[in-house]
Amino acid sequence: MMAGTMPRQSTRSSVPTPALVIDLTALERNVAAMAALAAQWGVHLRPHAKSHKCVPIARRQIAAGAVGVSCATLDEVAAMVAGGVAGLLLTSPLAGEPKFAQLEGLLRRDPGIMVVVDDPAAIGTLDAIANRLGTRLRVLVDFDVGQRRTGCRTAGEAVALAKAIRTTAGLEFGGIQAYAGHIQHICDQEARRSAVAGVADQVRFLRAALEREQLEPQIVTGAGTGSAEFDGPGGVYTELQTGSYIFMDADYLAVDMSAERFSPALFVDTTVVGVQWDNHVITDAGTKAFALNGPPPISAAGERGWTYSYDGDEFGRVTLGPGARRPSRGERLAFIVSHCDPTVVLYPQFVCVRGDAVEEYWGITPRHDYL
Amino acid sequence: MMAGTMPRQSTRSSVPTPALVIDLTALERNVAAMAALAAQWGVHLRPHAKSHKCVPIARRQIAAGAVGVSCATLDEVAAMVAGGVAGLLLTSPLAGEPKFAQLEGLLRRDPGIMVVVDDPAAIGTLDAIANRLGTRLRVLVDFDVGQRRTGCRTAGEAVALAKAIRTTAGLEFGGIQAYAGHIQHICDQEARRSAVAGVADQVRFLRAALEREQLEPQIVTGAGTGSAEFDGPGGVYTELQTGSYIFMDADYLAVDMSAERFSPALFVDTTVVGVQWDNHVITDAGTKAFALNGPPPISAAGERGWTYSYDGDEFGRVTLGPGARRPSRGERLAFIVSHCDPTVVLYPQFVCVRGDAVEEYWGITPRHDYL
Repeated sequence: MMAGTMPRQSTRSSVPTPALVIDLTALERNVAAMAALAAQWGVHLRPHAKSHKCVPIARRQIAAGAVGVSCATLDEVAAMVAGGVAGLLLTSPLAGEPKFAQLEGLLRRDPGIMVVVDDPAAIGTLDAIANRLGTRLRVLVDFDVGQRRTGCRTAGEAVALAKAIRTTAGLEFGGIQAYAGHIQHICDQEARRSAVAGVADQVRFLRAALEREQLEPQIVTGAGTGSAEFDGPGGVYTELQTGSYIFMDADYLAVDMSAERFSPALFVDTTVVGVQWDNHVITDAGTKAFALNGPPPISAAGERGWTYSYDGDEFGRVTLGPGARRPSRGERLAFIVSHCDPTVVLYPQFVCVRGDAVEEYWGITPRHDYL
Repeated sequence: MMAGTMPRQSTRSSVPTPALVIDLTALERNVAAMAALAAQWGVHLRPHAKSHKCVPIARRQIAAGAVGVSCATLDEVAAMVAGGVAGLLLTSPLAGEPKFAQLEGLLRRDPGIMVVVDDPAAIGTLDAIANRLGTRLRVLVDFDVGQRRTGCRTAGEAVALAKAIRTTAGLEFGGIQAYAGHIQHICDQEARRSAVAGVADQVRFLRAALEREQLEPQIVTGAGTGSAEFDGPGGVYTELQTGSYIFMDADYLAVDMSAERFSPALFVDTTVVGVQWDNHVITDAGTKAFALNGPPPISAAGERGWTYSYDGDEFGRVTLGPGARRPSRGERLAFIVSHCDPTVVLYPQFVCVRGDAVEEYWGITPRHDYL
C-alpha cells in the first residue's frame, strides 16, 4: 500500500490533477436541503452511502437529522461501523458463504445492522447467524418494483417471506425495501411523476397484503434523488435512501426537478496538457478519472461550446465548438462529473475545498482491502 | 484509510466477491512470451505499467528481460521508485506547475527517470529542474502519429524540439516516442498491419530528418499489444511499450493476432445474487467492478449464450440466450474483464491465485494518495 505518499497542499490550485474535489459549501447546502425536505415531508432520511463511501460525510448527514445511512456493500458497512456510524441498512441481498461470514463479523460489532432478503434460503442463514450471536436481527423484505434486479417478484412472494421471517427466533420483520432505480433518471418531470405513482401503487398493494397478515411494515424504504420530490410527500415511504443529491452530476443535472435545491458539489480538476490541435485541447483526465456512464463531464465554470470525451486512460479531449474559449496549456479546468457514484471509486480520497483553500482530505472506502 | 480490514483467504473460492483475480500461471506465461518475442525481434521491452500499476509485476517483467517500465502518471513513477524499479519512462508530457514539482521530487530519488516533451516551454522548465538537481535528464520528443492526443504534429516541429534540447545544459536528447494508440484495437489483422506500416513511414521520415541534423535517436519507443507483432520485427522501434499483454481482456481478445501467444490472466470473480428472473440472473459486479469501455465481460469458463451487462453500481446482469446454462444463487462466476487498464483502478489489490490457492495479494497504486 502506497499510502500517504503525496504532500498535502493548502490551495486547490496547487493540488496535482486529476483530483476529485468537493466544494464543502455546496455539499453542506445539499445535506441541509435534503434534511429540510425530509423534515417537511415527515419522512426519515437514511441517505445512501454508496454515493460517497465516506465516514465524515455520513456523520454530517446524521448530524443534519438522518437516522443512519444505507450501504450497498459490506465494505461500506465495515467502514461505517469502524467510523462509529449507526443506523446502517445494507440494501443489497446477500448470497454466497463468504458474504454471510463477512456480515456475521460485522454484526458482532454492531447488531443493529439491518439487511434485506429476497430469497427464502437467506432467512435460514440469517436466523442461524442471529442465534449464534444471541441477538435479534431486523430484516426488510426486498420487493421488485420493475427493475428486475433484486427483490421478490410479487406481493405474494414478499408476504410469504415476511411470514417466514416471523416464524424464526432470530429475525424480526422490519418492513419493505422498494427501490425503483430504473425511474430515477427519467428526465421529464411529468413522466417521472407518473412512473413514481405506478411504483407507489405496487407498494400500497403489498402493504395492504402484509397488513392482512398482521405484518405491519414499520419501515418502507426506497427513493432516489430523482424520485424523492414525489416519494417524499407521497405517503408510501417512511424513509428515503437518496444518495446522489449530496454531489449531483451531469446525469442528474439532465433530470428536470421541481426546484434547484441541489448544487453540483463534486468536481474533477484537470490540467490542459495539449493545445497543438485546431479544434480540441487535451486534458489529463481520461477513462481512469471519470466514470464512463452518464453524459459527458460539464465545465464547472459554465464554459460554452466545450464537449468532453475520453482519449485513453489518462487523457481527455475538450472539443471546441464555434466561438468557444480556447484554454491554454497548463490551465486548470474543473468539470462536473459524468456520474458521481462510479467516479468516486476511482480515487482514494476527496480533496475538500472552500473557495481555493483545501480544508480536508476525506478517505473513500476501497473495495475489500487486504493490504 | 481503511487499510487491511479484510481477513486474507487461502482459497480463491473463499474470497468475497467482486474480486480482481490474477491467474499467476497465465501471467507468467504472458510475461515470458512477450520477453521471448522481444528477444527474437532484437528490440528492448519497456512494458507499460499503466496496465498493472503494480511493483511486483514490474519486477517480474524486468526479471524476464525488460529494460524498465513505462508509466503514464507520476503516481506510477513514484510507486516504481519506491519499489526500487529502475529504467522508468514517463510517457505523458507534463504541464502545470504542480506536476513539474512532483517530478522534481521524484528525480531527486531517481535521476534516471526519462520524460517526453511536445512543447518548447517544457524544455526550459525541465532544464531548470536538471540544473537545480545538478544532473542531466534524458528527454524524448513525443511525436504524434495520428491520434491527435499528445506529441509534435510534424517532423519539423519534432526536429526543432530536439535541437532545442541539444542547446540546454541540463537535458540530453534521448530519442522519439511515437505511440499509435488509435490503431491498437483494429480487429482485422491486415487492416492493422497496413495502419502500422503507415505509422512506421512517419517515424522513418522523422528519423531521417533528425539524422540530417546529427540527432540520432537512440530510443524509438512505441507499440502496444495490438501492433507489437508488426512493430517488433519492423526495424523502426528500438523498444516496445506494450502493456495489456500481461492480462489480456475482452477488448484485445476481439483483435485478430498472429498467434495465441497471450492468455487471459485477469478476472473479476462474481457471485450470483439473484435467480428469480426468467431470462437473466443477477451478479454482484456492476459499474464499480468493471470498466465500462470495451466489449462486455466474457465467461472465463467458456459458458455459451451468456451476455453480461451492468445493472447499477453493484449489480451485473447475465442474460441467458437459448440453451444457455442457468447458474444458481450463490454460485461464483469468473469473467474476463472488458478493458483491463481501467478495471484495475477500481480495486486496491490483485488477488493472485494458482489453481484455487491464493498465493499473493499485490497492491495497485492508487491515484495521488494523501491519507
